[in-house]
Amino acid sequence: MGERIVIVGGVAAGPKTACRAKRLMPDAEITIVDQDSLISYGGCGIPYYVSGDVADEDELRKTSFHMTRNEDFFLRAKGVKVRTLTRALAINRKNKVLEVENVISGAKDTIPYDKLVITTGSQPFVLPIPGAELPGVYTISDLHKAIAIKKQLASGQIGRAVIIGGGAIGLEMAEAFADLWGAETSVIEFMPQLLPRIIDPWFSTMLEKHMESMGVKIYTGEGASEIIADENGKACKVVTPNRTIDTDIVIMATGVRPRSQLAAEAGLLVSQFGIVVNDRLQTSDPNIYAAGDCIEVTHMVSGQKFMAPLGSLANREGRIVGDNLAGIPSTYPGAMGSFIMKAFERCIGATGLSLESARAAGFDADAAITAPSDRAHFFPTEAKIPLQMVFDRRTRRVLGVQGFGPMNDAVLARIDAAAALIAKNGTIDDFSLCEMAYAPPFATALDALNAAANVADNMQMNRQRNVSIPTFMAWMEDMSCQPDWRALDIRHPNEVGAFVAKYDDKWLPLVYSDIRAQYSKLPKDKTLIIICDAGTRSYEIQIFLDSVGLGNTLVLGGGFNVITRLEPQWWPNK
Amino acid sequence: MGERIVIVGGVAAGPKTACRAKRLMPDAEITIVDQDSLISYGGCGIPYYVSGDVADEDELRKTSFHMTRNEDFFLRAKGVKVRTLTRALAINRKNKVLEVENVISGAKDTIPYDKLVITTGSQPFVLPIPGAELPGVYTISDLHKAIAIKKQLASGQIGRAVIIGGGAIGLEMAEAFADLWGAETSVIEFMPQLLPRIIDPWFSTMLEKHMESMGVKIYTGEGASEIIADENGKACKVVTPNRTIDTDIVIMATGVRPRSQLAAEAGLLVSQFGIVVNDRLQTSDPNIYAAGDCIEVTHMVSGQKFMAPLGSLANREGRIVGDNLAGIPSTYPGAMGSFIMKAFERCIGATGLSLESARAAGFDADAAITAPSDRAHFFPTEAKIPLQMVFDRRTRRVLGVQGFGPMNDAVLARIDAAAALIAKNGTIDDFSLCEMAYAPPFATALDALNAAANVADNMQMNRQRNVSIPTFMAWMEDMSCQPDWRALDIRHPNEVGAFVAKYDDKWLPLVYSDIRAQYSKLPKDKTLIIICDAGTRSYEIQIFLDSVGLGNTLVLGGGFNVITRLEPQWWPNK
Repeated sequence: MGERIVIVGGVAAGPKTACRAKRLMPDAEITIVDQDSLISYGGCGIPYYVSGDVADEDELRKTSFHMTRNEDFFLRAKGVKVRTLTRALAINRKNKVLEVENVISGAKDTIPYDKLVITTGSQPFVLPIPGAELPGVYTISDLHKAIAIKKQLASGQIGRAVIIGGGAIGLEMAEAFADLWGAETSVIEFMPQLLPRIIDPWFSTMLEKHMESMGVKIYTGEGASEIIADENGKACKVVTPNRTIDTDIVIMATGVRPRSQLAAEAGLLVSQFGIVVNDRLQTSDPNIYAAGDCIEVTHMVSGQKFMAPLGSLANREGRIVGDNLAGIPSTYPGAMGSFIMKAFERCIGATGLSLESARAAGFDADAAITAPSDRAHFFPTEAKIPLQMVFDRRTRRVLGVQGFGPMNDAVLARIDAAAALIAKNGTIDDFSLCEMAYAPPFATALDALNAAANVADNMQMNRQRNVSIPTFMAWMEDMSCQPDWRALDIRHPNEVGAFVAKYDDKWLPLVYSDIRAQYSKLPKDKTLIIICDAGTRSYEIQIFLDSVGLGNTLVLGGGFNVITRLEPQWWPNK
Repeated sequence: MGERIVIVGGVAAGPKTACRAKRLMPDAEITIVDQDSLISYGGCGIPYYVSGDVADEDELRKTSFHMTRNEDFFLRAKGVKVRTLTRALAINRKNKVLEVENVISGAKDTIPYDKLVITTGSQPFVLPIPGAELPGVYTISDLHKAIAIKKQLASGQIGRAVIIGGGAIGLEMAEAFADLWGAETSVIEFMPQLLPRIIDPWFSTMLEKHMESMGVKIYTGEGASEIIADENGKACKVVTPNRTIDTDIVIMATGVRPRSQLAAEAGLLVSQFGIVVNDRLQTSDPNIYAAGDCIEVTHMVSGQKFMAPLGSLANREGRIVGDNLAGIPSTYPGAMGSFIMKAFERCIGATGLSLESARAAGFDADAAITAPSDRAHFFPTEAKIPLQMVFDRRTRRVLGVQGFGPMNDAVLARIDAAAALIAKNGTIDDFSLCEMAYAPPFATALDALNAAANVADNMQMNRQRNVSIPTFMAWMEDMSCQPDWRALDIRHPNEVGAFVAKYDDKWLPLVYSDIRAQYSKLPKDKTLIIICDAGTRSYEIQIFLDSVGLGNTLVLGGGFNVITRLEPQWWPNK
């Protein structure tokens, strides 16, 4: 008889561990226990099931070859035993048994193990506010809740929705309600921006503006303080310090916490980020492994511990546990939180550290912002994809990349390539030379990612000096507060007119190709903010003006391709 | 006065060198000479200009901000002098002058230099066959020829086209003729496959079948032996050993050769692959640099010298020469030929070495073939993207990746990430763990590229044993030639029926999930080829059968997702 492996938790990391271990050790006796009746589903697909993109919840439980991943499937196809509706009560490490109880009958039982794997995942964090537990308030934590939400949508009960939490799940749910079902949808985010920490504010604002243009109301910097019930006891209003919003449903998407209680109670080492594991994903008991949302992960860039509740990581980690159970010494290098999400007709993605996170982690970090074309500018489907590259000024190491673009795989390509290089401690030079595949329908000769690296190079070598986007935005808002600044707008006269009309002599138009001939017209006693479409020409002009003694200039990185995405009213043709 | 820099060649590497150098050294005196009247155009865009995707040839000469890159633009905007219609005759290295002649007037002149840069590009190779020089035979080498071709198309003179050469340019031109203009288009390729050397035959055949399904006639393994003229002396027939094809135009797309004559005549070191340079792109004369199609490049994977005539590389190389001219010691690590192309509704891409090239370069190379989903299988736009990962069995280093998929950026994302990792000597393990961004609209939880690496891992660890695709195809063609083989088809009975009907008892259907219960039915004295959709389940079954003593099995890597793309008649629903 083979080794007895017991796995607690059957959604992502658990089944992956089980199947990999069984393939490596065909005679192992593997049992998965899960307190739910539904296992091994694509939890990340819930927003698309709710929206209707995925017709049936069963599709989230099916393999790519159309078999439903239920107990019978695991037993027959994989040789893995699954006990659903079975709650793990305690780990008896001395006797190496797992104590369990049937959640329906209450019957208790013990399961002996040689090796135990904890893949208990995460649980949604519920804001401790009045009304949080009312009927009509849902977390997006399991398929049952998703089924209940969709039933209400399908029967026309939801005309209005409030999402508490502007992270990825909250925003995906907002799209699900607003897009196909036409619900009047509001998102409330306590932090001053959407996607806090993983995306810097000037990027998340581009997403916010797009979602608003699609009809979603977004209130950032505003926490929900209470949920109020109607006469039937069902949630009907969400209260913030600034407003009260009527609603038919409330989605609580305020993050998750590791489900690490079972491990902690068994005396295993647990931190605020989850179960502590070594790089072979062993807990402090060498006979017990852990993987998925419930473990503490090392950030590959900062070296800091964090929680990384991503389905993609759960699968990688499960495979590594499977290897180690079978004696293959695979190690887990940690994670960097590669991330991408769809929002209506746009997508946003990131990998590594944001500028804010990088500085918080102690790096001498700066950010190169560009707005390059995703493919040849003469190709019909070309679009701009604002990119940001966060780098360390001391070492030239690239710490993170963010991108925003149309809803296709153009941003994905740059994020994936960046993740690959960052994992290998890639520097600005590695990114500058990275040989992205080129043909006009797919990229530019110097790819967008190479271009971002070249901007970072120019900044790190102190050839390019920037004004920050928030500073420039504040200045556009109130021109008088920065009396010594002037905008030097080098774009085509057609693009510049509206700004000159509004800002008068504070906005100096001088076409890019005329500057070498006419720079003597420019004021010497003002700070000139050089403005173009993408920031590239502004840098050229900065260098030229430096060479003729006009050194008091700053480049607006990303140029108006970024500004118009932050302040759509600035789009001149609108 | 600043340094005098003279650059010979004004298409891609030359202008890039000039502009970068001028930015780094604003007081440098930079002159570009080019024998053509048109400079700095996007040569890779020619097929899209011919097709009509790009309306006007001027668009290929414009910047992203709509200025035409002509002599006036370079002088006014960049501070770089351009002398068009000026042919470089000789380099007088002793006196450091370039001897030139005006191609219209014949007037001769000399241009003194402190540093010279040779960016003379490549010239099309013209097959030495009778009729190759006839009117109506075009190479795709400059914008003038493209304009002439499009004029004929637009005036309805081209109903039939023959392309000699099945490389990327030939195939892009074939699409241009066939798609928008509806010309009856034939491609002749001397080698037995399209895209020889850069793509392995089972991948290029997928492309070939798709192009055929769009109406392009493709003849591989068939060289053009003669081009015949009509009574007006214009090319009207292309002759091969097997056929004579009537045509209104002939495109000669049989590769390019480095334009290194100027360098060679000046006594600089030149190889068959181009001008020899060091890693700072200096020629054998330290005052002379070279970049672009005309230089010999080191392959980053094989270490071998080769020619890499790609616009993307020309731009990278130009930037490095610019740096070095300005005293910044940037180095060029070489290239790996990252490549992608559109063909109607599909795309194909590659980076690094093909299996054939890897073996030729002395690696103990093998290839993992998969056919994973590009995004969550439950997401509506999901498609399969066959991927191949070439790896070294000895070191686990990944040597190359190829992909084929629908016409979007899904293949691009995997090729770009692969290129990034291969450049850093990435191993199978790096690829397995590479943290590709995940959300259901963009990827699968374990990304397609991770999945390919996991197959490579299983193969390298000798857990997975494959039958090669050519072997299996030959066997399907003539079942009798391999009497001891049986197909064990574990797909859904709906998918299997047609094969059982055709192959009778040679084709054994047994559903994946029934194998653990029913394996005893399987013959023990035959080689079983295990067949599923993507190869993944077949591997699982192989492992299981090994464990029960049925060790004589082989997996069909990539499964029927690959086979149906190679032999469309096998698509069961067709």
